[in-house]
Amino acid sequence: MRLRNKPWAADLIAANPSMILVSPEDIAGKWQTRFAKEQPIYIEVGSGKGQFITQMAQKYPDRNFIAVEIQESAIAVILQKQVELKLPNLQLLLGNGAALTTFFAENEVAGVYLNFSDPWPKTRHEKRRLTYKSFLAEYQQIMQPTGYLRFKTDNQGLFEYSLMSLNDYGMVFDDISLDLHNSELAEDNIQTEYEEKFSKRGQVIYRLEAHYK
Amino acid sequence: MRLRNKPWAADLIAANPSMILVSPEDIAGKWQTRFAKEQPIYIEVGSGKGQFITQMAQKYPDRNFIAVEIQESAIAVILQKQVELKLPNLQLLLGNGAALTTFFAENEVAGVYLNFSDPWPKTRHEKRRLTYKSFLAEYQQIMQPTGYLRFKTDNQGLFEYSLMSLNDYGMVFDDISLDLHNSELAEDNIQTEYEEKFSKRGQVIYRLEAHYK
Repeated sequence: MRLRNKPWAADLIAANPSMILVSPEDIAGKWQTRFAKEQPIYIEVGSGKGQFITQMAQKYPDRNFIAVEIQESAIAVILQKQVELKLPNLQLLLGNGAALTTFFAENEVAGVYLNFSDPWPKTRHEKRRLTYKSFLAEYQQIMQPTGYLRFKTDNQGLFEYSLMSLNDYGMVFDDISLDLHNSELAEDNIQTEYEEKFSKRGQVIYRLEAHYK
Repeated sequence: MRLRNKPWAADLIAANPSMILVSPEDIAGKWQTRFAKEQPIYIEVGSGKGQFITQMAQKYPDRNFIAVEIQESAIAVILQKQVELKLPNLQLLLGNGAALTTFFAENEVAGVYLNFSDPWPKTRHEKRRLTYKSFLAEYQQIMQPTGYLRFKTDNQGLFEYSLMSLNDYGMVFDDISLDLHNSELAEDNIQTEYEEKFSKRGQVIYRLEAHYK
């Protein structure tokens, strides 16, 4: 969802170049240099206000995480948290999810997370859905062969579409859950802000994990 | 589900050889001869008490239907209906769904329906699920290249499993619905006895359609 404009966002971003990059053109293949330790890199495309990615970084200190977000006012909220937390395994990237192959080199990423992505329900907007084939091709290009794509949503139409789209693309499902919060995966599940709110209202949460052949 | 034994079932079956076959060994490739008209043949594997297949046969007079059911006491209930209805495009087969390739020739079938199949939730019973790979291979062998498999269930675990199993097998999804009764497909949907009962209780019904590559 779109957040209200934050007048302080640009200044905060400019003041913290060690924590955030803005549409960088020369970082592909060099992401490890921005982390305290060289460890597998996981990215979240569309991090919103960042509850998921910051909690993941805290829970898994032996992995590096990158929040990719196109909205300045959203990533500024994550940056506020990170300025406080100073997590050594979290980096932020303000940039377009449709340009991932300019930000990452081949095999640079161990996993991609998509959480509650915009459903773009109109057929004419299909190409904007983050599980559309052009995005699947992007993730494939930057992901290691052992990597995985994990996708959560409460949007039934988007989940149905995504199952079909990934299948069409030839991806292999490792796991499908049609009610994540009442499954054995619930215990380990780190929630987004949105997920917390809507699952409390009884909304079913869907999840899949898949890899490339 | 297992029905109570019906002492009259065997006699009724024996009395109606033009409507029902019992594990026939020489029918493969010759099913059209048992129908009034030569038309595409659709089978339902596990027809239970037959509400779905008899209503399908009534709704689509330009298609032939075969109810395949392994329980004598269940198919006898369908036969009772058919003795009354005398639908020219409905045949019954008392036989094992695991032996379809002995009952049907290659390309003899235009479509396969699975409705509310036994979920066999224990991992050690995986091979009994009607969407296990050995069954998918059977359907493929008897189905025309343009044919499709349609599967409905209210069982979340079986549906998750089936999505994975069909994907693994290399099948292509034509359609996935995670809430059939609240979708645009609901209007055309013919319900089974079980489906009617459980959807009234608020149970979500899942459906998929897929074909072979």
